[in-house]
This record gives sequence, C-alpha cells and structure tokens, in this order.
Amino acid sequence: MDFQLDQAKEILRRTPATLNSLLRHLPEEWAFANEGPESWSPFDVVGHLIHGEEADWIPRAKIILEYGESRAFEPFDRFAMFEKSRVQSLGDLLDKFEWLRGESLKGLEGMNLRPEMLGKRGRHPELGAVTLSQLLSTWVVHDLGHIGQIVRAMAKQYDEAVGAWQPYLPILSR
Amino acid sequence: MDFQLDQAKEILRRTPATLNSLLRHLPEEWAFANEGPESWSPFDVVGHLIHGEEADWIPRAKIILEYGESRAFEPFDRFAMFEKSRVQSLGDLLDKFEWLRGESLKGLEGMNLRPEMLGKRGRHPELGAVTLSQLLSTWVVHDLGHIGQIVRAMAKQYDEAVGAWQPYLPILSR
Repeated sequence: MDFQLDQAKEILRRTPATLNSLLRHLPEEWAFANEGPESWSPFDVVGHLIHGEEADWIPRAKIILEYGESRAFEPFDRFAMFEKSRVQSLGDLLDKFEWLRGESLKGLEGMNLRPEMLGKRGRHPELGAVTLSQLLSTWVVHDLGHIGQIVRAMAKQYDEAVGAWQPYLPILSR
Repeated sequence: MDFQLDQAKEILRRTPATLNSLLRHLPEEWAFANEGPESWSPFDVVGHLIHGEEADWIPRAKIILEYGESRAFEPFDRFAMFEKSRVQSLGDLLDKFEWLRGESLKGLEGMNLRPEMLGKRGRHPELGAVTLSQLLSTWVVHDLGHIGQIVRAMAKQYDEAVGAWQPYLPILSR
C-alpha cells in the first residue's frame, strides 16, 4: 500500500486510546512483566514511545523540511526510557504519551504537507538517504509494532498456564 | 505467572475497547487488508473472535463444569467467520463482539468459580485432558494473540513504504 498522509494520521491518532484500553490500571504484575532478559515490559514500551514523540518523529520531519540531506538526524537512543521514566507511574506515562501524541499531530498538521513535499529527502545517520514519507510510514509501523510487543509480553505471562494449548497459540513462540 | 481469575477477567474485559480504538471507522483499505494468501484481515479476526464467544470459551467452560472429562468439547471451527460474517460491516461486528464479550463475562461471573473448581478437568477432542484454568488462560492469550495479529496485518501494509527502515521494524518480518 502506498503511504497516504490522511490514513497515517488516522492510525497515529488512535494509539493513545489503544494503550489506555490495554494498560490503564492494569495490575502491576502485568504492566512490569517482560519476555525475559533484555526484553521490554509494557511500561518500558510506553516510555520508549514517549521518547519517540520527543526526539524522533516530528523533530526528524522538521530537519528534513528545513535542511534536507545536508544535516543528518540526531541518533535516537532506543533505551532512553530506562533512565527517564524509571520513577513515574504507568498512568503518568500514559497521560504524557497522550498529550505528546496530540502535540505531534498538531505539529504535523502545522507543516501543511503537500504531496510533493512527501518525497523530500533527509539523511539518517546510519541508513543514509530517506524520504519524509518513509519517516512517516515508519512512525505508523513503529506504533503498531510496539502495540504488538505489549500484547506479546502480556501473553507470555501465561505461557505455562495454558497447558496443552501452547502449540495452538503462535504468539507464545514469536 | 500463575492463572488468577480476577486478573484474567480484567484483561478479557478490555478487549472490546482495544478493538474499537484500533479498528472502528478505520478506512476499509486497512480493515480488509491481510498479510497475503491464507492470512486474515482485521475484519476476519473480529469475526473469528465473535465465533469464539459463541462456540468456544463459555460453552466449553460449561461442559467442563457439567460433564468433566466424560464429554469432549465440540470441535471449534477456526474458519467459521468466512461464511458467517461475510455480509456484515466492521462496525456491526465490533458491536456484536462487545455485546457478546459482556455476556461471556456475566456468564463467567455466574459460575461463581471457587479456586478448587479451576483445576477441574475436561476433555479436548484433540489435546485430551485440560483444566478449566488452562481453558481460561488460553482465552486470555487468544485475545492478545489476535490483537497482535491485527496490528501485524496493518503494519505490513507499509512494508515497502518504510524504505530503508524495514530491517529496524521486526513486526514486518514476524
């Protein structure tokens, strides 16, 4: 499917409500449970999404529009949340993400992107030349991927509790 | 993690709202897109979850409580929705699932399950002896797995649109 700005915004707009329905007031045992060493809990994922709003999507879109390929993006710290959101509650993080996503969508709206602007190129510090539409498509897929990661981390808590049904449940082995 | 009835109900209760926030009024291109031949679209998944409420979880729990291992469950048709929900709209399916899930949770409440009842055994037509707590754990994991399937099917629509970011997005290759 080709990138379509209206559809991408429509999906990005939904993520705070999806996270709220999955996670708000979830028992702590579930919110802080991960898939094993080096993996992330739902709590970690929300912190990571917050850092994305602050340091990745809109800031990078602005760099593309302003500097094109002449200035590379700042590298993105995928683990920033382990320091930044450590002492906050899950409810605080969900509130913060909801607010930041609203601001990001206003920022996107404010760019008044015309179709020909979507092909504008920027420079990723590792990947090289990328376009604005690729950045915005990645934002959509990144949201969906992390929702998938949250439900996978949750599902795996019942890995043993499901007994003989385990091989019927592919999420347990992904 | 051990199965806990209250926590399981808490997760099962959330699924209709999660599906609503992901899917209600989603552009049809996205709601009907799948991961390729033999795979399911978000629309198909909601139809499958409806059939689970009607024919799987509560009906099987009742069989365990009433007949124990003396009567095997009816086999569950994983593809029933291709016939049953074909002519309905996604909005109708979401409404129906929400209503049915509410009824299922009332049904579960009405069973007044005491801890010692959770170990009661039933007979799965293929897997053999299973317990009530394994059935209820499977219900939870099944919900989460299908939410994961929905976001994966959606993410894959932008498989190419993300350009060079593709290897950074593991959901695209799951």
